[in-house]
Parts: sequence; structure tokens; C-alpha cells
Amino acid sequence: MKDRKLLMIPGPIEFEPEVLAAIGEPTTSHVDPEFIETFGRAIELIRKVWMAPNGQPFILAGSGTLAMDAAGANLIEPGDRALVLSTGLFGERFAELLSRYGADVTLLPFPLGETVDYGRVKEALASGDYKLMTATHVDTSTGVRVDPKPLGRLGREYGVLTVLDGVCSVAGEELRQEEWGIDVVLTASQKAIGVPPGLALLVASERAIAAFEGRKQPVGSYYVDWGSWLPIMRGYEARHPAYFATPPVNLICGLGVSLNRIIAEGLDRRIARHRRLARAFRAGISALGLSQVPTDSAHAANTLTAPRYPDGVSGVEFLGHVRDAGVILAGGLHPEIASEYFRIGHMGAVTEGEILTTIGAVETGLRRSGHRFVPGAGVKAVQEALSDPD
Amino acid sequence: MKDRKLLMIPGPIEFEPEVLAAIGEPTTSHVDPEFIETFGRAIELIRKVWMAPNGQPFILAGSGTLAMDAAGANLIEPGDRALVLSTGLFGERFAELLSRYGADVTLLPFPLGETVDYGRVKEALASGDYKLMTATHVDTSTGVRVDPKPLGRLGREYGVLTVLDGVCSVAGEELRQEEWGIDVVLTASQKAIGVPPGLALLVASERAIAAFEGRKQPVGSYYVDWGSWLPIMRGYEARHPAYFATPPVNLICGLGVSLNRIIAEGLDRRIARHRRLARAFRAGISALGLSQVPTDSAHAANTLTAPRYPDGVSGVEFLGHVRDAGVILAGGLHPEIASEYFRIGHMGAVTEGEILTTIGAVETGLRRSGHRFVPGAGVKAVQEALSDPD
Amino acid sequence: MKDRKLLMIPGPIEFEPEVLAAIGEPTTSHVDPEFIETFGRAIELIRKVWMAPNGQPFILAGSGTLAMDAAGANLIEPGDRALVLSTGLFGERFAELLSRYGADVTLLPFPLGETVDYGRVKEALASGDYKLMTATHVDTSTGVRVDPKPLGRLGREYGVLTVLDGVCSVAGEELRQEEWGIDVVLTASQKAIGVPPGLALLVASERAIAAFEGRKQPVGSYYVDWGSWLPIMRGYEARHPAYFATPPVNLICGLGVSLNRIIAEGLDRRIARHRRLARAFRAGISALGLSQVPTDSAHAANTLTAPRYPDGVSGVEFLGHVRDAGVILAGGLHPEIASEYFRIGHMGAVTEGEILTTIGAVETGLRRSGHRFVPGAGVKAVQEALSDPD
Amino acid sequence: MKDRKLLMIPGPIEFEPEVLAAIGEPTTSHVDPEFIETFGRAIELIRKVWMAPNGQPFILAGSGTLAMDAAGANLIEPGDRALVLSTGLFGERFAELLSRYGADVTLLPFPLGETVDYGRVKEALASGDYKLMTATHVDTSTGVRVDPKPLGRLGREYGVLTVLDGVCSVAGEELRQEEWGIDVVLTASQKAIGVPPGLALLVASERAIAAFEGRKQPVGSYYVDWGSWLPIMRGYEARHPAYFATPPVNLICGLGVSLNRIIAEGLDRRIARHRRLARAFRAGISALGLSQVPTDSAHAANTLTAPRYPDGVSGVEFLGHVRDAGVILAGGLHPEIASEYFRIGHMGAVTEGEILTTIGAVETGLRRSGHRFVPGAGVKAVQEALSDPD
Repeated sequence: MKDRKLLMIPGPIEFEPEVLAAIGEPTTSHVDPEFIETFGRAIELIRKVWMAPNGQPFILAGSGTLAMDAAGANLIEPGDRALVLSTGLFGERFAELLSRYGADVTLLPFPLGETVDYGRVKEALASGDYKLMTATHVDTSTGVRVDPKPLGRLGREYGVLTVLDGVCSVAGEELRQEEWGIDVVLTASQKAIGVPPGLALLVASERAIAAFEGRKQPVGSYYVDWGSWLPIMRGYEARHPAYFATPPVNLICGLGVSLNRIIAEGLDRRIARHRRLARAFRAGISALGLSQVPTDSAHAANTLTAPRYPDGVSGVEFLGHVRDAGVILAGGLHPEIASEYFRIGHMGAVTEGEILTTIGAVETGLRRSGHRFVPGAGVKAVQEALSDPD
Repeated sequence: MKDRKLLMIPGPIEFEPEVLAAIGEPTTSHVDPEFIETFGRAIELIRKVWMAPNGQPFILAGSGTLAMDAAGANLIEPGDRALVLSTGLFGERFAELLSRYGADVTLLPFPLGETVDYGRVKEALASGDYKLMTATHVDTSTGVRVDPKPLGRLGREYGVLTVLDGVCSVAGEELRQEEWGIDVVLTASQKAIGVPPGLALLVASERAIAAFEGRKQPVGSYYVDWGSWLPIMRGYEARHPAYFATPPVNLICGLGVSLNRIIAEGLDRRIARHRRLARAFRAGISALGLSQVPTDSAHAANTLTAPRYPDGVSGVEFLGHVRDAGVILAGGLHPEIASEYFRIGHMGAVTEGEILTTIGAVETGLRRSGHRFVPGAGVKAVQEALSDPD
Repeated sequence: MKDRKLLMIPGPIEFEPEVLAAIGEPTTSHVDPEFIETFGRAIELIRKVWMAPNGQPFILAGSGTLAMDAAGANLIEPGDRALVLSTGLFGERFAELLSRYGADVTLLPFPLGETVDYGRVKEALASGDYKLMTATHVDTSTGVRVDPKPLGRLGREYGVLTVLDGVCSVAGEELRQEEWGIDVVLTASQKAIGVPPGLALLVASERAIAAFEGRKQPVGSYYVDWGSWLPIMRGYEARHPAYFATPPVNLICGLGVSLNRIIAEGLDRRIARHRRLARAFRAGISALGLSQVPTDSAHAANTLTAPRYPDGVSGVEFLGHVRDAGVILAGGLHPEIASEYFRIGHMGAVTEGEILTTIGAVETGLRRSGHRFVPGAGVKAVQEALSDPD
Repeated sequence: MKDRKLLMIPGPIEFEPEVLAAIGEPTTSHVDPEFIETFGRAIELIRKVWMAPNGQPFILAGSGTLAMDAAGANLIEPGDRALVLSTGLFGERFAELLSRYGADVTLLPFPLGETVDYGRVKEALASGDYKLMTATHVDTSTGVRVDPKPLGRLGREYGVLTVLDGVCSVAGEELRQEEWGIDVVLTASQKAIGVPPGLALLVASERAIAAFEGRKQPVGSYYVDWGSWLPIMRGYEARHPAYFATPPVNLICGLGVSLNRIIAEGLDRRIARHRRLARAFRAGISALGLSQVPTDSAHAANTLTAPRYPDGVSGVEFLGHVRDAGVILAGGLHPEIASEYFRIGHMGAVTEGEILTTIGAVETGLRRSGHRFVPGAGVKAVQEALSDPD
């Protein structure tokens, strides 16, 4: 069993005890009236969290990659052209995935640590006849945040479907799917949504559903075919369940609890909290003399931070020291620089105290790794930032 | 929250408190040493439960349908011929699924309630050049059990890959994957494996992996591509984790607990328990004057029972009465006869007491629905059957 | 961890998952607003369950014996005369306890298996100047039930304070403390109240509180002194907590859940359920040829049954066989006949199914112990009794 | 349900998830073999934690006050003289309690914030014929720590039984009961022992048991009479359970888990951790310009800290701000200065991160209450202190 070490990786995160209690409850039938209500209500709440009042939510047993799969498989037909804006590993994954379903993919990579340059996107759109364009709201491998508003706007302008990989952003970064005109926003449960891993979540716009319904060929993957899931999602939402595959009852009960908490906190307050804590944490990291993978804090994620190790600090050793000090962090993931940086998740129910705890443990880890700095400089900078009027 | 009503549907079932406690524990990192050990050990234990010492297990976030998808997508290339032996709804689903991946499917349906006639299978195999053949060990929609031994034998004889849908059988019915020469056996967690829904489980034989590796075309579905999962499964088994998608940590912790319990009980004893309780339950059903969907008790499943309502009994009303008496049963699923029968799951950690409880509640439901029988006849027959020396 | 064996002893019993979940939640402060509400509400609900709208509830960390201690220590002053009506071991315990606080105790024992003969009580009251009289509503050691109505009536008639030991009765047997004029009714959490052991619960009438307040000498025991607890109980009920000792937060949270469920079921329905299931269980025991410790079923408890072993059956062996069959029963407790009988608790959230399960396991145990009977006779009799219109 | 706010009061504390999981498990029988082992082993481990290899542990359902009651009631006979060394509210409580059992009590109070002056104790012992002497290891109301070594030494020198109230110290402060010659050390579960409230724990020396056995009069309180509990404790330790009152099964299961963790950490390391974290926390408090109730940090507790509010800061308002910042602290308890100070518990499984979190929230609370200080000064001082080589 996990002890009281603090899990500060970019997913899975520390979950609310109430969510954990819900998933550990005795499993009920998937057609039990109380479960039907829980499932139906979760579908409704997802619309609110995504800010997509006319969108169609899907809740599937699977990982975040399955959510990407669902977007790609349902919207791509062999030969379709797709433009993938890449700010890290997960952009590249989307390119590979879309190719699998027959897409002719143009990968538009941005330099490591930089965000999307929409001027270049516009050029690409102007030059090609794309059906679909994807971007990664926050790339978990780099901590780079992309502004999704131009994505939607350009998509509408050029008649291109837009898919936003929100695995590391939904419920932690500002998102207004419908207002911004984005066709699919997908995520996984174990990130800012706050539910143990095992659920793939996505919302499709009316335009996306129409595109799906106008397909000429069957969906490439059987499991994620929206045609099988639409009656299920609509059925549970109408509180008249239908059967395609047994839903992951316990995880959905946990999802219900977590969505209720998100709504109770209020989306604006929740996003502001993420922003405030991220800014404080970055202040602490800077005060310790560490730089970060994102080239500008203006496009650094609010859900995770990706600091580079200072000279002379070994990642494996450092992460071990931090762990001994009670906090679990993640190493680098992007192959080009994997050994040069580490990653801290700070999303979901994360608190001021956890930010302090984490920067304190980072100080301890750096000190034990031989890095020189003024003891307490990191925690002081965090506390100062938290003291600022917002 | 589920109250103390007994859940006796063919999945999800009543889970062990120890399994539920494990999935409700605070989530740990997917690269935490303790979790690596849990995941690695689960992979090893799956081999034992499937009796496939040289098989390759896969543990994926998803439903049982995803396990079918994984088998089909990885083994079928467009144009391959497939023979689907159907004893209910899930045979038909397999046919549809394989077609999706480009298979040329021959559906060999057996009359409702009857098991596979291997004479007809042999004829079919002799007449066609099949790459793959599937059967449903226990069809959840009919309660019909198929003997998997000839499936493997004929597969080897005719050089055809064999896939056994064991969703409603693995860990409840006798299974010797390697000895019987079956190439893929798949299941879902929420059945006799005894873990809340959300895990797709399968074991591929060396021959199946070789067939996969010899593919000329990429796998149709991105998410289930064994090429992505093999390094993960092999990595965790070697206790050196690799990353493709975040594993469903909590469910895998529950799986570890349940597999340990299955091994501790002993496979032979476990199968014998399922057989003994199923026989007793069928005796009770017969004593109340009800017939069953399987045409012969010799091929009735040991994991579920599918009795037909007696004349004049309405299913909706009856199931409500049974529920009021404290037991939750499932209605019919097979479209041809959905309103004519009901289904009782009795698998996993099911006990003698739960069998008695269930038949008692069935008596109550029948009585309140106006069916005439000797009160106590059902429970007496069950108890007599349980008293028989085994 | 307890496996899925059914715990059918006269406390602790099988608790509702929702109660267990509540006690396993992270502990909150004893002055947290939510806990104050939970505690205050529990005090209010206890009054409803005891049917004592003007009574003063006490909720203390301790066992049922502590609840007896609280009644005795607060109401007895050295030299007071006390009359103890004894129908088993727990009557004797009350005599010993009252003596400890200086009472001059007259023990009025009734023959083993018989209930209180109020004619003899009246004689005793007429002949002595008693301050206090106690009775055991259901004696857990014999399964004998006492009618508490004459207890209250005679107490009022003779100006004697009355204490009812309801450890094995409250929330399982009919109880109307105020209407019946009983001064203290006490119990423990782990019986029909449905909460794991660790809480002593009692309600004192206005008359009892007045007697306490009129004491000339301090209370003999420091911990149970109502003088320390009254401000606490009144404070939490007014939602203004006071401090004497840290309350057992987790157990009180569980108590809140269980009391809510009791009220939701309805006291009348709950008592009727206990009566109906007890009658059915006794029918099963009789059908197997076993007699019971209570000499007449009219005064047999509805919360437990105390059958005698048939000739030739060894208790240790029998209880082991029953356990192997999945049900845990208790051996005899009364020293005179401890090896001659066993005890089955059936209270709290007990269901029809558990009654059937238990009688089925008793059959199995008897059969394996060599007792001869018609297989299924017990379960049949139970089912028949359950089929009777109530 | 408690949310993720951090509970930093001097009991109940934040408990390990593993402990909470254990108490939320389905309750087993108190004579179940697995529970017998758990209970027996807990008794053995208590001896280790108390460092009293020949002591007799008692585990009772009740609060810490009940543990005091057990010590007082079993060792005092009417007329015995008792010397109570008081360093706060709980010394006064012990005086009141001992009087209840007939003791002739001399209360030796030390000035608020000061520790025991053993010169005065020696004088008192020399002048009177005492049977019993008590001290409070850490008084929860003042945060004053007393050195228990002279207590034991003087007790032996003057032939006086010694009782140490270790409610706020056992498993958090250095304790060597047998080496130091202390006759009874008592505590409650919800403090540094790390188990939700509801268990009273104490260990009696051979000398204490002999004194008990030599009593001329029966023990004043029935429930805590060691005569009833000795066969139970010895029975469970010998793995042959006996019955007096139903043990609080779930809490004892939690106790077993927590004691195992304490032993696994190692007593020396655990005490050193408490000392190190307390020192760091006090450094943070000082850096913010706050003084403390203990007059000298040499006798300040390592399990809690009791800072005084700076001028102009209102306690109610401050504690509300701290709570809003995610940490729950306790107000003052000692009646003379209740509104002038607050209390922070830091014991049990407390971590560096929680110390930082708490001081950070204290900064936030002070700032919002109008106190002027250098932002970050508190967290910086804590981090510096944590950075010091130990």
C-alpha cells in the first residue's frame, strides 16, 4: 500500500479520499437505478466541465491513449489529410495514431520548449486540404501549453475538424470547448479530473458527430466506434441504459464524485487555483537557480512543471533523495532530453501545502545532490508568491 | 452505495472485500517499485490461471469487448478467412468484430441452446482455407458451454489459429490453454476473475505471437496493437517497467489480490466448486418446474444459469420481486428470447450460502408472481444436491 | 482480512458496507463542523430509536459492559438496595457490578431458559425497599427474551428506578422506553445497532437524571460520571461542542450512518423483520430435530437463537463444519450448559438470504457430525415460514 | 467526509491510509483465529514500544481519560496518599480522578509553561507518606514536556508507585518504561500511536500489578478493574482468548497495523524524527516573531507546539484563515490563557512536508490577520532547520 509519501507526478495524482472511497465500494449492477443515475449525471457534468453544452460526451474504459484512439479512429477515413501540431512526445503519438487509420499526416513540430506558432499553422492550412487538425493543450513530456483558441478559430475558418488532446489540461487549464469551436477535447481520468487511471473521456461537437455520421467507410477500430457507444451514452443520459460493453462501474462512481467536487469548487476558481499554484511553484524553482523546458513562462503549463537539472546533478540520484524526503516526482520523458530534466505534476485537488512540501523536498534533493543554493530560498519564494494578491 | 442485496448477475459479481479494499487504496505511481512487483506478479499469475506456461499475457484498461478487439485486430489482416462458431450473442459479436478488421467471416451458428457440433466444424474447416476460428467458452447470453478441447485440436489439425472467448469462463470453468492448444484465451475482470470491471485480459500462444509478428500490414486498431504492449508486458514482468499508456493502477492492484486468492484456492478445487454449486442450483431450478435455455445440462455453464420463466410469469415483475427479496438477477439478453428467460451468475467467490439465498429469493419471486409450486421445494433440492458426496 | 464467510454470531454482526466505509474514512477533528453535526444528529436519532423523546442519550467510547457500568455507577450510592432479575449470565454480571458500587443486591434468578415471572418480581418489590431494578431484555447467553413493559410499570408502581440491559435487543426487539416508563436502556454498538464494537450507548429518563442529580455522594467511577458527560452531550446536540475526552470520531461517523438507515427502514418494519426472520429460523432448527435453550418460543429472542446440540454431536466439531460451510456461529456461553448448545445472531441488517444460508450451513454441519435428518428439511421449513403471509 | 485539509491538531492526527483501511474492513469475530493473532501480537508489540519487556499491557475500548481511570482506580484505595505533579490541565484532571477513588491528593503545580522541578518533588516526597505519584509526560494543554527519568528514580527511592500520563507522548517522545522504573505508562490511540480515537492503552509494571493484587478493597470502578482484564490480556497473548467484554475489533486491527509500522521505523529513528521536525517547526514559529507557552525550548514537547498569538491577532479569525489555507489547528485549552495561544500537533506519521505546509499556512493566517513579518521567513527557517545535519 502507498504510504504517506506525496505523489506529485503528472498523473496519477493524489486523489480525494472521497473518490477513492467511491471506487472501493461494493460494485453494483450496471443497470442498478442508482448507478444509472450516477452514470447519467456524470455525462451531464462532463458537458459542464468541458463547457460544451451541445457536445456529446463519451466515457470509456481505457487509458488516455484510448481517448486519442477514439478521436482519430472515428474522424479519419483512409486518405484524409491531417495536420498535427506537435509540442512534444504526444503530438508525435497523434501523428502515428492517425496514420494507422489511413490518414495522410503532416507533422508540424515546434522547437523543443516552444509553443505553437499559429502563423505557421495558418500557412500550412492555406497550403493543404486538411480534414483534421490536432494539438496538445499541455504536452506532458515538455510542460508546454498551447493556446487552444486559435486552434478552434482556424479550424472553423478553414473547414477543418479540430481535436485537442487535453489529457494533461482538462479541469486544470482554461477550456471553453464550444465557445472556442473545438470539435473534440479528450482526456484521461488520472490527471486533473482526479480519478484513478482507467477511464478515457472525450466530448465531440455536433460538427464532429456529423462528420462521423457522414463517414463512407466503417470506423477502423471496433471497440471505439462511436456508432456502438452513442446509444449507450444517450441511453444512460436519458436514464434508460443500453448495453454494449460492461461499464467500469467503480471508476465511474469515482468519476461522479470527482465531477461533483469540480463543479462545487467552480471552474473559474479551479483554474485560478491551478494558475496561482503553478506560478508559485515556478517562482520556487527559479529561486533555486533551475531553468525550465518551456522557453517562456507565458506558455508553461499550470498542471505540471518541467525543470532542468542544474549542472552536476544526476537525475536518478536527485529523484531518490526527493523520494526519501517524502515526495515522488517523475523523470524526463522526451527522448531528446530525457536525462536533463524532471517533471512535477500539480493538478486536481493540489493544495498550497503540497506545493510547499514539494519545493521543500526539491531543496532537500538538490542539497543532497551537491547543488549550492541558499537554504530556504525555494520555499521562501513559493511562500512569497502565494502571499501576493492574486 | 450498494446495500447488502446480493448481486447474482453474470458480471459484475460480488467481489471479495480484500479486492475492493485494494482498488480503493491511495493510488501509487505506475513506476513505484511496489506496483512494478504487483503488475509483474499479476502477469506471472495469469499464466498459471490460464495454464499457459509459455503464453504471453496482456492486461489492458478496457472491457471484455476490448479483449475480443485485441485478439481480432492483432490476428486478422484484410482478406483473412475466419470461422466463427456461435452459440449466442457473443459469437455474433465476434463475427462483426472480425469483419471490421477485414476478415472474410463464415458464421457457423448452432441452434439456440445447443452447443457446438464439432462434426459441422470439421466439415467447415475442410471446405475452406481459414486463418482463424473463434468460439465462446460460455455464452453469457444463453448459458451454453462449449467444449474447448476439440477447438484447439482441430485448429492444430487444420493449421487454423484458435481464439476462445472466455469472458464468462476463465477461472470458473476448466481451462488448459496450452495443453489444449488454443492460441488466444481472453476474458474480462468482472467475471470469475473477481475484479471490478475495467480490465481486458488475454493470453496469446507462441503461435499467435508468431502470427502477429509475421503480419504484412499494420494492426487495424492503434490502441490494442500488441506491438505497443509487448515491451510493456515483458518490461513489467522483468520488473523493468516501460511506458506506453498509464496502466489502471488501482484495478491492477485488485487483480493482484484476486489472482493470489485464485491460486491459493487451487484451480482444480475452484473449478470443482463452480461445478458443484452450478449443479445444485440447476437442481433447485428444476425442482421449481422451470426449464433452461441450454438444451442439455451436460453443456450448461457452471458460471451462470439461464432458466425460462414458467407460463404466466412476467419477467419484469418477477425480477422486481426477487430484488425485493434481496437478490439482484439479470433479465434475458438474447434478442430472440429476451423476455422469456432470466440469468443468474454464480462465479468467482460464490458460496453455498449465496446459492441457497438465490434459490430462496427465486422461490419468493415465483410465488409472488403467481407460479404454483411446493414452497421450499427449490431450497430443499439445492440443499440435497449440496449434501451429495462429490 | 475477513473473507466472505458469513458472521452470524450475536455480535459483532455483519455490518453494512456504508457503515464500514464511514469508519474507515480519514479522521476529522472532533470539533470539525461536519463532525459536530454528525454527533449532534446521532444524539437526536438515538432518542428516536429508543422511543424516548425526553430521554438523555449518552454515547461513550467503551464496550457494552461500560454502558452497564454507566447505568450502575451513576444511579447507585453505597447502601442502596437493588433488585436484579436474571435470565442468564448478564443478569449475574449486573448484580456483581452494582455490588461494586456499594449496592445491597438481591439477585432474583429465573430457571435456565425461562423468562421473568413478574409475579415473583412483584413479591420481591413488595417486601423490600429497592432503589433500582434491572432486567436483561435479551440475555445473549441464553436467548431468553423478557417483556420490559411490566418492568417499567412495576418500577413506577413501587417507586423503583428501572434499568433495561438492551445490549442484545435495541433496534432489534420492540422497545418504547418512555411509553413503558423505563429509566435507563443501554446497549452496545456491535449488536442490532449495526456499528463495529467500541461504543457504549444509553438513554436516561428525566427521572434517572433527577436521581443522579440528587446524589449525596460522588459517582464511584470517574470515567462514566454523567456529570462530566452531560455538558458534552448537550453541547454537541446544541451544535456547540464541549470537551471532556476525545470522542471516538470514526465509530461515531459509522453510528450516524447506521442510525440513519434504521430510521429510514422504520422501527416498526425493522422489528417485524427481526421477528419474521427469527420465527423462520426457529422453524428450520425445529425441523432438524433440535430443541432450544428458551423453554418456550413465546419468550425466545428475535435477535439470536440458542439451539441445543442433538445427541452425539460435538460442539467443537460441529462449529468447525459449519465454518467450513461458510458460516461462523458462536458456541455456548452460559457456564451451566456451555458445551450443550450454540448461538446464532440474526440482527441488524440481516436478510432472508442469510437466514437460509445459515440454516443450510447448520444442515451441513449436522450431517458431517453424524446427525440423521431429512436433507433439506431445515431449509425447506425456513422457506415455508418465509412464505407465510405475515 | 474529511477533505484533503491537513489535520494538525494534537490528536486525532492524520492517520496512515493502511491503518484506516484496516479499521474499515468487514469486522471479524473476536474469537476468529486471525483476530486472536492480531490482538495477541498487538499486546506483544505494545511492550516493545513502551520498552517494558516485563510489563503487562492493557488494551481497552475507551478514551485516554479511561486509561487514566484504569491507572487510578486500580492503584488507589481509599485513604492512599497521592502526589500529582501538574504542568497543565491534565495534571489537574489526574488529581480530581484520584480523589474520586478516595485518594488524599497533594497537587504540586508548576508555573504555567514550566516543567517539573524535581527538587520540589523530592521535598514533597520526603515530607509525606505517598503511595502514588503521577506526572504528565507532555501536557496537551501547554506543550510542556517533563523528564520522566527522575520520576521513576524518585519513585523507587521513596517507595512510591509512579504513573506517567503519556497520552501525548508515547511513540513520539523518548520512553523507556522499565529502564526508568515507571510503574504505569498510559496513552490513547489517536495521538502518536496513530490509530483513530477509541482505544485506551497502558502498561503496568510487575510492581504495579503486585500492588493491585495486594489491594485490600475491591477496585472502585467495575469496567477498568484489572482483575477482569488480566485473564483477557494474558489469554489473547497466549492465543487462547477469554471473554469479558467484546473487544473493539476494528480499532484493534488498526492498532496492529500501526504498531507494526512503528516497530518497522525503529523507535530511535521515530523519536529522532519527532525531535527534528519539532525543532524545525519551532524555528519557523520563532522566525515569525511568535513566542511559545513553554518557557524554555529545552522542555517544549516534540509532539505538539503551543505558540502565543502576536499582539493584535484574534485567535478565532486566525484559525479560520489557517483553515482556509488548508490546515486545521487547535485553539488554546488551558483556561488561564485559552484565548492567547494555539496548538499544533506534529506526531505519528508526520512528515517534513506537513511541517512546511503547516508553517506556510500559519504565515498565511498571520498575514491575513494583519501581523507584519517578512513573507517566507517562517518556511525559510523551517527549511534551514531541516537542512541542518542532525
